[in-house]
Amino acid sequence: MPIPAAAAEALAALLGPRFSTSAADRDLHGQSESYHRAPPPDAVAWPETTDEVAQVAAICHAHRVPLIGWGTGTSLEAQAMATQGGLVLDMLRMDRVLEIRAEDMQVSVQPGCTREALNTELRATGLFFPVDPGANASLGGMAATRASGTTAVRYGTMRENVLALQVVLADGRVIRTGTRAAKSSAGYDLTSLFVGSEGTLGIITELTLRLHGQPEEVAAAVCGFPTLEQAVECVTATIQSGIPMARIEFIDADVVRAFNTFAGTRMHEGPHLMVEFHGAPASVKGDAEAFGALAGEFGGTGFDWATTPEARAALWKMRHNAYRSCLALRPGATAVVTDVCVPMSHLPAAVAAAAEDIRAEGLLGPMVGHVGDGNFHAQILVMPGDAAELAAAKRVATRMAERAIAVGGTITGEHGVGIGKRPLMRAQHGDAVSVMAAIKQALDPESILNPGKLVPEVN
Amino acid sequence: MPIPAAAAEALAALLGPRFSTSAADRDLHGQSESYHRAPPPDAVAWPETTDEVAQVAAICHAHRVPLIGWGTGTSLEAQAMATQGGLVLDMLRMDRVLEIRAEDMQVSVQPGCTREALNTELRATGLFFPVDPGANASLGGMAATRASGTTAVRYGTMRENVLALQVVLADGRVIRTGTRAAKSSAGYDLTSLFVGSEGTLGIITELTLRLHGQPEEVAAAVCGFPTLEQAVECVTATIQSGIPMARIEFIDADVVRAFNTFAGTRMHEGPHLMVEFHGAPASVKGDAEAFGALAGEFGGTGFDWATTPEARAALWKMRHNAYRSCLALRPGATAVVTDVCVPMSHLPAAVAAAAEDIRAEGLLGPMVGHVGDGNFHAQILVMPGDAAELAAAKRVATRMAERAIAVGGTITGEHGVGIGKRPLMRAQHGDAVSVMAAIKQALDPESILNPGKLVPEVN
Ligand SMILES: Cc1cc2nc3c(=O)[nH]c(=O)nc-3n(C[C@H](O)[C@H](O)[C@H](O)COP(=O)(O)OP(=O)(O)OC[C@H]3O[C@@H](n4cnc5c(N)ncnc54)[C@H](O)[C@@H]3O)c2cc1C
Ligand SMILES: Cc1cc2nc3c(=O)[nH]c(=O)nc-3n(C[C@H](O)[C@H](O)[C@H](O)COP(=O)(O)OP(=O)(O)OC[C@H]3O[C@@H](n4cnc5c(N)ncnc54)[C@H](O)[C@@H]3O)c2cc1C
Repeated sequence: MPIPAAAAEALAALLGPRFSTSAADRDLHGQSESYHRAPPPDAVAWPETTDEVAQVAAICHAHRVPLIGWGTGTSLEAQAMATQGGLVLDMLRMDRVLEIRAEDMQVSVQPGCTREALNTELRATGLFFPVDPGANASLGGMAATRASGTTAVRYGTMRENVLALQVVLADGRVIRTGTRAAKSSAGYDLTSLFVGSEGTLGIITELTLRLHGQPEEVAAAVCGFPTLEQAVECVTATIQSGIPMARIEFIDADVVRAFNTFAGTRMHEGPHLMVEFHGAPASVKGDAEAFGALAGEFGGTGFDWATTPEARAALWKMRHNAYRSCLALRPGATAVVTDVCVPMSHLPAAVAAAAEDIRAEGLLGPMVGHVGDGNFHAQILVMPGDAAELAAAKRVATRMAERAIAVGGTITGEHGVGIGKRPLMRAQHGDAVSVMAAIKQALDPESILNPGKLVPEVN
Repeated sequence: MPIPAAAAEALAALLGPRFSTSAADRDLHGQSESYHRAPPPDAVAWPETTDEVAQVAAICHAHRVPLIGWGTGTSLEAQAMATQGGLVLDMLRMDRVLEIRAEDMQVSVQPGCTREALNTELRATGLFFPVDPGANASLGGMAATRASGTTAVRYGTMRENVLALQVVLADGRVIRTGTRAAKSSAGYDLTSLFVGSEGTLGIITELTLRLHGQPEEVAAAVCGFPTLEQAVECVTATIQSGIPMARIEFIDADVVRAFNTFAGTRMHEGPHLMVEFHGAPASVKGDAEAFGALAGEFGGTGFDWATTPEARAALWKMRHNAYRSCLALRPGATAVVTDVCVPMSHLPAAVAAAAEDIRAEGLLGPMVGHVGDGNFHAQILVMPGDAAELAAAKRVATRMAERAIAVGGTITGEHGVGIGKRPLMRAQHGDAVSVMAAIKQALDPESILNPGKLVPEVN
């Protein structure tokens, strides 16, 4: 449904040229990094202040216009797509670092600030913000999807690193959640409710984030394993042994092939772990030795240490570009990305079963994973238009999700629900989805905030 | 309002002698550890299964009977008191450790299991559950108040250590929240919503908790400081320096006097810090030395190391008994307990202002604190019946809360809201309290679950 003329006029009066219905602007905000496709939104707006966001929400509320937040548009389950039409609210122009409070290890930022921009600003402080999805996503989008990344095993996800929010509600009211204190028992944890709500309960206009001290010493390495099973069993053993890994990432042989082809490496084309250690020099040394010994027990060989900061940056950049490198393995392809997360003891079986399933369906699905959390992805490459292949990929994805649920895991460790995981929500949560629906209805009775996403059985 | 006869009959038919309206049982469940007073509940029930809890809820829902969860009744803001009458649901008989999954560092427990009972069960596993409020509280009650304790600075609070819940809703439906995976982005974070909801949104009937490895090495010590300011400034400096404290507790001169009088110590009657270090032997040594050096800069002296496990257990038992020792400083007194938590950089000023305010009002208010989190308590001793003294204590408590809010902190770091902090909720949260109210109304439209608590302006 197009935007009613009265709403469009009110938005244009409020925002001037920062409200657009041009095809170019709409098309740019109708794209997706994954296989999901939807028509572009009816309009795009670029607010510059919380007050403008509040007024936009009030206008959309009055005219029943769907309102969809947009950070950098990198989410993988069509979360930022206007699947029911409406207005996309691009937070790009609200990208400031508002206040660094180094003495409290906190920062306040606007939602459009990206994780890389934040860390650039922080460089001189000795502090950093650890959560690092593969894309240079916005912090608002990351909070909205409860994102994580390679360092979550040590520093947590957005759940652990968002202290407080400013949020514009569906009707334009502005609230603050959380505090600047390290903990609080003052009522319902609204911060945790908005984190992960994918723009369905409110638009985040400010975030207070927890920072961490840059580690005194860092060591990073890659090492290869004879089989996928051995690599993953090494991860489980490492986590169970309590070695405080800062990063422990799994990449399979296909990913290594992509790196060798597109990132200029010459690694052995088998499964590898990419690891990093943070801490005082003595503990880093001890941790690295302990890991080395464990890896040896699982056949780990060929430790390649990244000894300079530049070499480490290159290593993790390569890891962060895995998605794009793997896409390039099959030119023209797009990807169905799975995202299960299971209890650590179930990880080896889960990864092995997924690999076998992909093979049995005759698909190409390189696998990577934040395996220290029990989280891994198959990036199943499908050709746009090949319905049979897409169906096969979705079958694999569904079976992975069902196996995760069966062992007490989750259908999505970090990418979120959007429209892609919505049909699986009841299988995971049972009747708890009706509690989610009740909350959605209480906070957004007209269902204007990102309608049709996350909560099944609503709108 | 007494329980309608039809409801009482249904409850008696369901529970037999585990439903009681005897004066003795009601009186036992009408007590409070703090200055709050209320009439006893109209009845008490002791369920043994989730299904019984569900049926009790359905009966209470049908007859509009207030239903108040009860763990060990140690909460300090009258959370478990039946201020509007009704049925107290004592979880004492649902106290089993259901399943220890050591390989995933997780345990499933019933809500009536106490933290000490759980740790006794865990002893042989090499794992432990860290959250340790001063009372031997139930894990259900601890989740419901989002409790913390001396080790939260290192291991987090109940927010960080509850992975999943089973919850009975107001109308008797049973849901599960969360997963056994380390993280999840699968929809609204209902686990975090129920943690800290003080029994106003549902009755917790099962908890999945995160466990931690028993540290290889432990070192603990007490050291004295010339002034309160220096002790607290040392804490701020310690946390800012990044020393990974396992515990760092502040006690003031009055608390030391209570220990010397009732716990047999012979400490210098000035402010002290009680600290503990966990880790590999080398890091514990390094951390302890780094702390020692810092403490020296703030005038810290007389380090007294607890070198055996028994000595450490005695040390922390003494700390956990501080509340009772301090009550004994003034026989017959009860306590108004404050619980602010502020950003670390504001801690020294907050503690100093509180001490000065207590002195200026002519009150006796020993202070302790989980200061590594920025959290501290004044336990203001008041004589029951002395209205002027109670009013003065409440004035001090309110001013402490207001000062905490002014620096971005919270009115309650760990004790929760109950009825005591309810009047301050709007000052802290502004319009976000109406979002809490909307959630309460959506999940408990008849307001039978612990009515009159936590959320202001409802019921
Ligand atoms: C190459 C690649 C690698 C990736 N790796 C990871 C990874 O390792 N870990 C991981 O977690 N994810 C990963 N992702 C997914 C994606 O980066 C994350 O989901 C990220 O959090 C999305 O941020 P964004 O700014 O792009 O949000 P968008 O895609 O723009 O939006 C995501 C959702 O948040 C909502 N939203 C955006 N801004 C706001 C706001 N201010 N207020 C309210 N709602 C808002 C949107 O409406 C939408 O529902 C990857 C994606 C790609 C393409
Ligand atoms: C000496 C002393 C020291 C203390 N020290 C600390 C401390 O260091 N840190 C701290 O955080 N607290 C502390 N407290 C406060 C108290 O111990 C905590 O609030 C504790 O979490 C309460 O647990 P409980 O089992 O006694 O709960 P109760 O007091 O029985 O109940 C607390 C709340 O939880 C609800 N509830 C109980 N069980 C359930 C359930 N199964 N489902 C849903 N709701 C339920 C009740 O309705 C009530 O609202 C201390 C108290 C004392 C007396």
